[in-house]
Formats: sequence, C-alpha cells, structure tokens
Amino acid sequence: MACGIKDPAGKKDDLALLVSDEATVAAASFTTNRIKAAPVRASMLHIRNEEIRAMVVNSGNANACNGPNGLVDARKICKAVGNELGIRRRQVFICSTGIIGVPLPVENIRESIPTLAGKLNGKNWGKVAKAILTSDTREKMAGARFHVGQKEVTVTGIAKGAGMINPNMATMLCFIATDADVTREALQQNVHCAVDESFNRITVDGDMSTNDTVLVMANGTAGNRCIEQGSRSCKLFREALTCVMLDLAKQIVQDGERATKFVEVHVRGAASFHDAERVAQAVANSALVKCSWNGSDPNWGRIMDVIGYAGARVREELIDIFFDGLAAARNGMASDTPIDQLKRIVSEPEIRVVIDLHLGEADHTIFTTDLSEGYVAFNRQEYAEKVKGR
Amino acid sequence: MACGIKDPAGKKDDLALLVSDEATVAAASFTTNRIKAAPVRASMLHIRNEEIRAMVVNSGNANACNGPNGLVDARKICKAVGNELGIRRRQVFICSTGIIGVPLPVENIRESIPTLAGKLNGKNWGKVAKAILTSDTREKMAGARFHVGQKEVTVTGIAKGAGMINPNMATMLCFIATDADVTREALQQNVHCAVDESFNRITVDGDMSTNDTVLVMANGTAGNRCIEQGSRSCKLFREALTCVMLDLAKQIVQDGERATKFVEVHVRGAASFHDAERVAQAVANSALVKCSWNGSDPNWGRIMDVIGYAGARVREELIDIFFDGLAAARNGMASDTPIDQLKRIVSEPEIRVVIDLHLGEADHTIFTTDLSEGYVAFNRQEYAEKVKGR
Repeated sequence: MACGIKDPAGKKDDLALLVSDEATVAAASFTTNRIKAAPVRASMLHIRNEEIRAMVVNSGNANACNGPNGLVDARKICKAVGNELGIRRRQVFICSTGIIGVPLPVENIRESIPTLAGKLNGKNWGKVAKAILTSDTREKMAGARFHVGQKEVTVTGIAKGAGMINPNMATMLCFIATDADVTREALQQNVHCAVDESFNRITVDGDMSTNDTVLVMANGTAGNRCIEQGSRSCKLFREALTCVMLDLAKQIVQDGERATKFVEVHVRGAASFHDAERVAQAVANSALVKCSWNGSDPNWGRIMDVIGYAGARVREELIDIFFDGLAAARNGMASDTPIDQLKRIVSEPEIRVVIDLHLGEADHTIFTTDLSEGYVAFNRQEYAEKVKGR
Repeated sequence: MACGIKDPAGKKDDLALLVSDEATVAAASFTTNRIKAAPVRASMLHIRNEEIRAMVVNSGNANACNGPNGLVDARKICKAVGNELGIRRRQVFICSTGIIGVPLPVENIRESIPTLAGKLNGKNWGKVAKAILTSDTREKMAGARFHVGQKEVTVTGIAKGAGMINPNMATMLCFIATDADVTREALQQNVHCAVDESFNRITVDGDMSTNDTVLVMANGTAGNRCIEQGSRSCKLFREALTCVMLDLAKQIVQDGERATKFVEVHVRGAASFHDAERVAQAVANSALVKCSWNGSDPNWGRIMDVIGYAGARVREELIDIFFDGLAAARNGMASDTPIDQLKRIVSEPEIRVVIDLHLGEADHTIFTTDLSEGYVAFNRQEYAEKVKGR
C-alpha cells in the first residue's frame, strides 16, 4: 500500500507486509557496512533470538543515520505489527530502503499497519515486489523448484536494487520464501553460500549501502523429509537458492541506474581466489573502463591499467583479454583481431569480458554495468529536494 | 615541437627535451601500478645507475602494453638523444603519456631528435609544459625559492594530468629542476616525502596509470653549501619541493576532466593514519558522493554511507560532517543547519568537506573533483578512434 513516504499524495506503494501463517525457520544476510541502518540493527537482533513470522518493509526512506530515534522508530513499527498480528515484537523482521539521514515518518507507518494487515492475501507477492522499489524501473522476481524424494519444494524470491550497488552487498533487499522443511543450521549455511555466489558478485557503482538485507523464510509446508546440512537434498536446496538469488542479482544489474550495458567480467588463471576477485572487482568498478563500455569502445588498454593496480599478482606479458571470446589483447599486447570486429562486439547490450592472467587456476566473476551520463544526471539531486524548507 | 603523434597534421606539440649543461643529481618517483609502461621501466634502470643529463618526453601515446617492442623503442629513443647530445644512452630519462596499447611511432620521434635538440633554449620551460599535455586544458607550472646562507636556491616545476588520477600516483608527469647543490641521498628522501604530501593526495577518478613519473634534477649552480640529509637547509629544501609539488598537484585536480568543482576532503579524529587515509580516499572516489557534489546537493547521508564501508574503525554516533565549517551532520545525524545554507555552500566551485570521526588524533587530506556528465561523455571514445582501419 501507499502510506505517503515516497509521495505525499499517497499514489506510490511504499509499505509492504509479509506474514507466514506457519511457524518458520529463517536466515538472513546483512550489509557489512559499519554504518548500519536502524532496521538492520533491529532485524539482526530479532533473527538471532526468535522464530520470524512477519516482515515489514518500507521504501523511500532508509531510516539510516537518524541516531537513537531511528532504532526507537524501527521498534515501534515492529511492535505495531506484532500487536496487529498477535505475535511478539521480536518475531517481526523489518527493512527500509531509500534516502539516508531523513527521519522516518513513523506515525504514517504505524497508522497504516491495520489497513496493511487487512490486505494480506496469498496472491500479492508481485505487489510486494513493486512496493519495495526505489530508483528501480521494474519489479524483480525469480523462482525455482526441486524434489526431495516425491515431494516438490518451491523457492521463490523478490528483490530491489539499482544504485549504490557493490559486493558485500548492494543497496538491495531480497526476500525469499520457501515451503522447504529445513534445519536452521542448513538454512543459514546455504543462505551465506548463495549470497556469496550471487549478490556478492554484482556491482553498479561501487557504493555499498547501509541497508542491504537478504531474508529467507522456510515454513516446511512442502512436507519433505527435513533438509539437513551435508545431505544430498541440501545440495539441491543450495542450488535452488543460488539459482533464485543469482537470477535476482542479475536483474538488479540489468536495471542498474541509467545503465545501457550488462557486462560480465570473468577473471581466470589467477594465482589465488583473492587475486581473481580483486581484479574482477577493480575492472568492474573502474570509472574509465565503464565509460569506454558506455561508448562501445574496445579499450583493452584501460583494462590492463586496472589489472596492474588491482593489487593482484600479475605478469603483464602473460595477460590475455577477450570480448565475447574474441581476443583484444594477447600476451599483454594488442591482438591482431580487426578493430571493427572488436567494436561490433562491445556495441552489443550484453558483453562478456574474460581476463586470463595465466598464473594459476583461480577464477571469479562479477556482473556489472557501464557508466552513463544518465547515471550522473540521475544522482545529482536527492537530499536537498527531500528536506527542503527545513 | 610537433612530431605527429597527437595529430598527424603535426599541428600539436607532442615531443620535448630537457637538458642540463651541468652534471646533475637526480631522483624520481614512479607509478606503483604493476603494469608499467616501457619508458617507466627504462627510466627506473637509468636513474639507478647514471647521472641523468637529459629527459625526453612524448605525449599522445603511453608506450604501455606494447610488449618487448615497447622497451626496444624506448631504448632507441634514448640512444638517439644520447648520440645527438654526446652523452650515454643511460644518462637519458624517458617519459611517455597518452593512449595505452598502441605502438609508439618511434621513427617519427627518432627523426625529430636533431631538430628538437636544435631548438634547445633556456627560455622554453613553458613550451615543454605545453608539449606534455594530453586531456589537460592548460599548462601547469609552479616555483619556490629559499636561502641557504646567502645563496638563493630556486625550485621550479611543470606537470600534466587531468584524468586517470588516483593517489600512488596519478596519470601524471612532473618535472622539477633546481639549482640546489644537494646530496643524492637528501634529494631522493625529500622527493619521496614531497610526493607523499602532494601527488599521493589527489584523485580525479580513482584510476591509477601505467606511466606516472616525477623527476627532479638538481645541478648545484646556486653555489649553496651542499644540502645534506637531516640538516636545517634540508628542511627548507623539502618545504620548497613540497610547496611546488602540492601547487602542481592542485592544478591537476583543478583541471580534472570536465570537473566543475574542486573539493578538499579532510578527515580528522581518526584512530590511525591509515583509517584517516581510507576514509578520505573512499569518500573522494565514491561515484554517488561525486554526483551529489556535481548537483550542489549537500547529501551528507551518502558520505556517512561511504565512511561505513571504507574499512576504518568508526562509531556512527560520534561522526560529524562539515561543509566549509558548517555542520551538516552531528553525532551521526542531521544537524539543525538550515538546508538552504548547506545548499549555498556546496554550490560554490570550491568545497571543503571535513569529517571528524572523534576516535583519535590522526588526520589526512585528499583533493578531488566532482563527477560530471561531461567526464563520461569525454571518456566514452578513445581507442577505436586511434586505431581505426587496423
């Protein structure tokens, strides 16, 4: 529903509630930013101690950097939801996303909780996906199914995110619901693995937010034999979770603020995993490299430059760089691929850049965007607009 | 002179030669990028073993990522200069700046050396400052004087750089000449200190280049008592060197590619020097923060976000953020400064952002720019243009 945070006229949905009728096992992953929004701090506490039964989320305001009042407000909302649903405050998980440093209109939210609870409906998943959007242009949804014995298990998720996106994690929220019967330990472990393979592999602008949260709730209604850590079904469960999260993560990159290209940066042949990760992240976050992608310019020299300062072991004379399988550089030098062929490839809306360091076996992939003039124009104004007259 | 690298019609100066008639003591500082251009590798060797007597530099082509031929070409040019001047090849220091990964038109340069040597003139310092420019819009020159006893000593320098600028160091070249009589040890030490206080404190886009070089040559013609490491005159010399380099470094930032603002980011109250440095660099390189400066938006929330992910020890509730002395945030929250006052301040072409972490005594300063739509437009096309038809 709309409670007037995004839009005083109340035309844009900005508040949503998810409730599980059944008891759940829940696991979450949070931003590693040391400045954590109040809802993140509240939810970290709630998920440690309690069985989560509901999740309330608002968009348009991050409730970050609001001092002690931010936490008081987050608790008030959890309490209002708990009262409405007849559950404890700490069984409510809370998320916010939007502008930092502006007080949350907590009364708007509190007063809306009864109406919001009245709208609860098993078919509103898509409406929740819409209500959590900020600078996104479209809803992001994904799902997967697998079998444990004869029982079919479903994993389904929604996410938001478009800017302030960097690994570990992005300004993104992701909620996943599954009917799997799974132990708390197996759920937590698999959520961490899946986040590592998905949301920790995307970047739009290299800025990591204060509010990132992934929440997975499992209610066991599939009736499968309980999934335990290390079992065969656990592997299937992890694959399904990873598949859903990676799909959502790629949708976030594809919706990157004013981006015109979706770029996969794959580094292989690194001496260590950390080297592969450093090179992939540095290339994906380089302003100059991203500008060249925006211009469809096969400027492999700028990529070489980044490889050199990424902090990884490299030997210039061994490095190959490919655009969609076509060599742009071989042995650290220009290849003999005709420039027109390279240009045609980087003119596509999706590019795969492969960097082979030829020093070892480690590899890593990051999904990212170009940097456009539109991104700058879009992000020039935000704060003064929102607090004018203060 | 123009030798046709920047412009096939030969209208733009792109080649310069500096020669000392007297014996010199020289010291240099080079990029820490692991991919080093051929001229950097040649000059690192030459300065270790020989008394440098000449410096040859071209703009428009970096001679980087050209494989073994790059080094062969750099040596050929040094040899041609040595032959022309009657000095050894290894007494010639060489620099290049421009596009990466395009073979250097070495014959153009070699054939131009006699003409270039014929133009040598004590009054051409400004012409050299012009010939080394690439995306710069103006020449960068600075000077300082001090006394050792009765003798006046002069330090004078030129630099280039506008994009691919990040601490340690920038895509920049800097040449400094002084008539000081100074020991090799004192010169080397002071060059490193001065670079640390100047070129290592600027960033435009966070991209560190393959070609950065600072060269200082001292010929002793001031007739001063020789400056030795640890002496009183050594301190004066270091101050003069730092003053010249900091002046040039700021000129590079002021000429940042399509930048509209010059921003000083000062972090104080950090628990350690590294913490102060991490926060200052992360804030100065954040795409979102730079966009808000471009829009004159006092968006301190984005700065808080960066402080949180910079990797430094921070406590949200202690952090203050000021724009030109006016508090935007106090104790991690919005201050009560009227938004119009904040907006007026960040609308100025020069902004000073002070971040006080209130955790200790360490501080650090970085000079940087905003990020403009013009920067993106300017950097979209480079490579395919230069190598078309290949």
